[in-house]
Amino acid sequence: MVTATQLDGSPVGFTATSLASLAAVPPLATFNMARIASAWPAIEQTDRVIIHLLGVRNREVAEKLSGPHAERFVGDHWTLGPHGLPLVNDVTAWMVGRIVERVAVASNAIIAVEIEQGALGEPDDALIYHERRYTRPEP
Amino acid sequence: MVTATQLDGSPVGFTATSLASLAAVPPLATFNMARIASAWPAIEQTDRVIIHLLGVRNREVAEKLSGPHAERFVGDHWTLGPHGLPLVNDVTAWMVGRIVERVAVASNAIIAVEIEQGALGEPDDALIYHERRYTRPEP
Repeated sequence: MVTATQLDGSPVGFTATSLASLAAVPPLATFNMARIASAWPAIEQTDRVIIHLLGVRNREVAEKLSGPHAERFVGDHWTLGPHGLPLVNDVTAWMVGRIVERVAVASNAIIAVEIEQGALGEPDDALIYHERRYTRPEP
Repeated sequence: MVTATQLDGSPVGFTATSLASLAAVPPLATFNMARIASAWPAIEQTDRVIIHLLGVRNREVAEKLSGPHAERFVGDHWTLGPHGLPLVNDVTAWMVGRIVERVAVASNAIIAVEIEQGALGEPDDALIYHERRYTRPEP
């Protein structure tokens, strides 16, 4: 789950199924998105995002944050985090990513971020988004 | 699993844990790698790669192709596929990707490919590489 802030200060968030590690030193990651996505204007202009890693216990909030846009941030499941960015509560990990590359490819974009700070929450089995639903890895 | 051919014609392959969808139309995908990886010289100069999606039945070949470099292509677990690229046998799906972007970020690279052709094999549960071992999604 990636969150950011629009120019008017309102929060946006979307399920980034394409989050991938790029490097360990410096800590870099990538995610991809369509430039027609509702969150793209925010991602296009912001310096930083928060990337959240979700556990099985976060399934309900994951479904809320991938549901209707107007309802994604209605509720007390988030607070204002570093740089005024939306921070989802009780995730297994979160990271502030400073955007270092935006690469347009056709009508899409690849975003590379350098991880600047973050924290671990309580451990949990990873929540996996597989074939358009949330699941977990089998031991 | 991504395979390619070096300038001398010899096959290379590596486990791309970062494979991610970028777009559906045209079909685009990305993967990331370190530019110090043994496969980087091949990826840097080649036009095309084959991306293989692995099923649970491919666990043994997945371990072989992520093992010692000199032994990865010793055996009959692969053939020459389109464009002379190494094609791993009996995978759940494979795709020929034409490289459309190589983006250097620090000592790493983001590779974007356009999928040109491919085929489905027998279906299987997806083989997942999670915390440095292969596993499968839980229903």
